[in-house]
Amino acid sequence: MAKGRSLISPAFGQAVRELRIKAGLSQERLGELSGLHRTYIGDVERGLKSPSLKAVEALARALGRKPHELIVRAEQLSGWR
Amino acid sequence: MAKGRSLISPAFGQAVRELRIKAGLSQERLGELSGLHRTYIGDVERGLKSPSLKAVEALARALGRKPHELIVRAEQLSGWR
Repeated sequence: MAKGRSLISPAFGQAVRELRIKAGLSQERLGELSGLHRTYIGDVERGLKSPSLKAVEALARALGRKPHELIVRAEQLSGWR
Repeated sequence: MAKGRSLISPAFGQAVRELRIKAGLSQERLGELSGLHRTYIGDVERGLKSPSLKAVEALARALGRKPHELIVRAEQLSGWR
């Protein structure tokens, strides 16, 4: 859809994985908490899927964060500018 | 996909519309700048589509913002908590 490469989607996946592991959650458990399928979460974590904003929101809620906190972390990890 | 209603997607649309108008851009021009179709931008602005993170990134670049700035504004507009 958008032209060019997404810098932030793979970094967002890293951020989710980081926070999920910090919270001691499996992908399956994060799936239950967020209402997302664990294979979808796996794809997002590996940067294979660019999540919808709705999924970002669901993941943030399940991880006890605000959506923008996940995005800020993804910007840091990606060196976004 | 995610269970429940998305609070942030319609608010994100409002945030994009706000910034687009502030920048004096038409939906068509924002489409050219972001590589997204103007009808997609219209759907996002009206909260009919939850944009992918890749689209959020493309819109942020085109509007001269960082992705998290758009998300913070959407959280404010939606009263996210």
